[in-house]
Amino acid sequence: VINAGKSQHNEDQACCEVVFVERRPSPRGRQPSGDGSGELDGGRKGFYFHYWALFDGHAGSGAAVMASKRLHLHICEQLRDLVDILQDPSPPPICLQHDARAGAAELSRAPLTEDNGEVPSDALPRFHLEKAVSHESLVIGAIENAFKHMDDQIEQERASQSISGGCCALAAVYLMGKFYVANAGDSRAIIIRNGEIIPMSREFTPETERQRLQFLAFLRPELLGKEFTHLEFPRRIQPKELGKKMLYRDQNMNGWAYKKIEEDDLKFPLIYGEGKKARVMATIGVTRGLGDHDLKVFSSNIHIKPFLSCFPEVRVYDLTQYEHCPDDVLVLGTDGLWDVTNDEEVASVVMEVLTSYEPNDPCRYTMVAQELVVRSRGVLKERGWRLPNDRLGSGDDISVFVIPLGGPGNYT
Amino acid sequence: VINAGKSQHNEDQACCEVVFVERRPSPRGRQPSGDGSGELDGGRKGFYFHYWALFDGHAGSGAAVMASKRLHLHICEQLRDLVDILQDPSPPPICLQHDARAGAAELSRAPLTEDNGEVPSDALPRFHLEKAVSHESLVIGAIENAFKHMDDQIEQERASQSISGGCCALAAVYLMGKFYVANAGDSRAIIIRNGEIIPMSREFTPETERQRLQFLAFLRPELLGKEFTHLEFPRRIQPKELGKKMLYRDQNMNGWAYKKIEEDDLKFPLIYGEGKKARVMATIGVTRGLGDHDLKVFSSNIHIKPFLSCFPEVRVYDLTQYEHCPDDVLVLGTDGLWDVTNDEEVASVVMEVLTSYEPNDPCRYTMVAQELVVRSRGVLKERGWRLPNDRLGSGDDISVFVIPLGGPGNYT
Repeated sequence: VINAGKSQHNEDQACCEVVFVERRPSPRGRQPSGDGSGELDGGRKGFYFHYWALFDGHAGSGAAVMASKRLHLHICEQLRDLVDILQDPSPPPICLQHDARAGAAELSRAPLTEDNGEVPSDALPRFHLEKAVSHESLVIGAIENAFKHMDDQIEQERASQSISGGCCALAAVYLMGKFYVANAGDSRAIIIRNGEIIPMSREFTPETERQRLQFLAFLRPELLGKEFTHLEFPRRIQPKELGKKMLYRDQNMNGWAYKKIEEDDLKFPLIYGEGKKARVMATIGVTRGLGDHDLKVFSSNIHIKPFLSCFPEVRVYDLTQYEHCPDDVLVLGTDGLWDVTNDEEVASVVMEVLTSYEPNDPCRYTMVAQELVVRSRGVLKERGWRLPNDRLGSGDDISVFVIPLGGPGNYT
Repeated sequence: VINAGKSQHNEDQACCEVVFVERRPSPRGRQPSGDGSGELDGGRKGFYFHYWALFDGHAGSGAAVMASKRLHLHICEQLRDLVDILQDPSPPPICLQHDARAGAAELSRAPLTEDNGEVPSDALPRFHLEKAVSHESLVIGAIENAFKHMDDQIEQERASQSISGGCCALAAVYLMGKFYVANAGDSRAIIIRNGEIIPMSREFTPETERQRLQFLAFLRPELLGKEFTHLEFPRRIQPKELGKKMLYRDQNMNGWAYKKIEEDDLKFPLIYGEGKKARVMATIGVTRGLGDHDLKVFSSNIHIKPFLSCFPEVRVYDLTQYEHCPDDVLVLGTDGLWDVTNDEEVASVVMEVLTSYEPNDPCRYTMVAQELVVRSRGVLKERGWRLPNDRLGSGDDISVFVIPLGGPGNYT
């Protein structure tokens, strides 16, 4: 991680942890009849997950700092009710027969017969229409809800803890042979496997989420505070252009068409600007993340939070489906990295640095991360920080994780 | 096309046309100063597009019949204002300096100087922030809006013309070297090029559009008429399960999590069922298309149209980027084809049939389409229509277009 110097505290924050998920104790003191595979850590039943996360703060480091200290605990909390279910190879129960805190999964494994006293006699036809839900999708749901709880906690404690701003969040959870990569914001994760680049996230920006935001504004025009229009135009409209025809697009369109300019079109567009300069209500350039509960349009009372989502997109990578070599890695980076170094350049730095170290040297991954950060920062010249090709270096905080997928320290 | 026999009239309808888009005449009688490349058809200025479309009706053939007769005319109408703009290699004007009907594109080509009397002196900084809009995205916008106008026309004329039901619409427009494939519904288009399958559409169903529909229902709960819940559950909940924990997901989630069942969760889920049996409000299995303005939930006053979109997704394929051979084709098919014959099987039938004819025999493409329909229908046996592998044949109307991309009749 490197601080760009634009803020006293680093607005990029990071966390790397091994977290033990302990099965929630049964309130009635009953012990599970499991096969013991989950008996770890001195008899406590549960499992471990490995965790890496990057938080790219804006308008202060408060949200990023808090999220870096807490998000993994929320993920742990969400997984606690699933300890038995995830360790049971049979499909997860649709309905827990008793309150989950009472060790529901264990009880749900009891055969569903009339004797059980819980299953109605018309159960069979009903169960024909059951949708199968995978273990994997329970972990995805747990991570999604953990982000929501994290966001709620920031909202509740922002006054007492003086938490300012918001942050993008990118988290990788390694659990039972699979990587779950959760992204809310404009950070990015890629896997480099045998030289091939596998995208593990996509960015959530005013441009990529345009239609979601326009749809919301169309349905809830009061959120625009009479200052903004949900339509997109390629540039600002001048009042004297009223009545002329101008290109536009709405929540339903990917293409552009001409419309006659009306009074309402003179308002500022909800989404405006291109690329890194695209903004929601002229204010924020990312559309997912944590915090920002107090964010308003400058010098107005219009709240921006309703347009932001705290939910990540979670992608899954099954580590067991492929034999990984020590040069295969998962790279997580904040936009400070990706703004100046594209996927192919990152992959080539990864190769270059890794081959200059012994395959079993554990510090080789750290050296890759360091090299990626330093190269993206560039070198101080007369006209600012410059990359070798004389392009401008990143003016942003930069954080990178390089996680070996088949290296000497594996996760078994 | 083949009628399944489930309705007297075929609910699948099709259209294939070459359409001339004539430049809208200038009301002031001014002639454009163009280079003449668009002077066609005895001095009329314009261009041609080639058009193929499939309409898969439901609850009657009315909407499908009407759309098959009119959609290309709506596309033509939308393109008429773009005749000059699309033939001008410079970027489309953002704002038309005069009313579009007055030959705007021509005028916009005049240099933007102070002398023009139209451009303000502060134009330069403003124009720095202009978003570039491509010719391609104007055609996409024209097709999108043509679908909307088609849907509006069905709404307006449904009473006087006794138009019943609705229809999925899949249209391929070949214009200036590019194929624009627009899909609203569960029909499908693929390109088979040198044996490789290139998807040219995706299906819009309650499952693929779950989050859009849940989001709308969450924001506009009154649309659910107190009968439905926007949450998804893997099966119906029994009243006696109140207070237990059950798997669910909402508009923000891709994964699943457990929630305590409340009174409101006993309502019927907005989206219910799996695969071909998935339905919106227990009624309809497609979420985009034309018509259905009067569709209601059975024995209720709850309208379904607000959840349906008439807007297509448009994908573009540039025919000039690749040298096509006579065996390269674009296949359009209604779900009657794709339900029983997957992409790979279609590709293999295409190869098999094409190689049994001379490459310059124009009827070879018709024979492929016929073979695809017949194979998907199957053979009548004791237990109904059966495929060679004894799976059930399609019980649906089946329509197929096989369009040569590099055959003897090309589109120049």
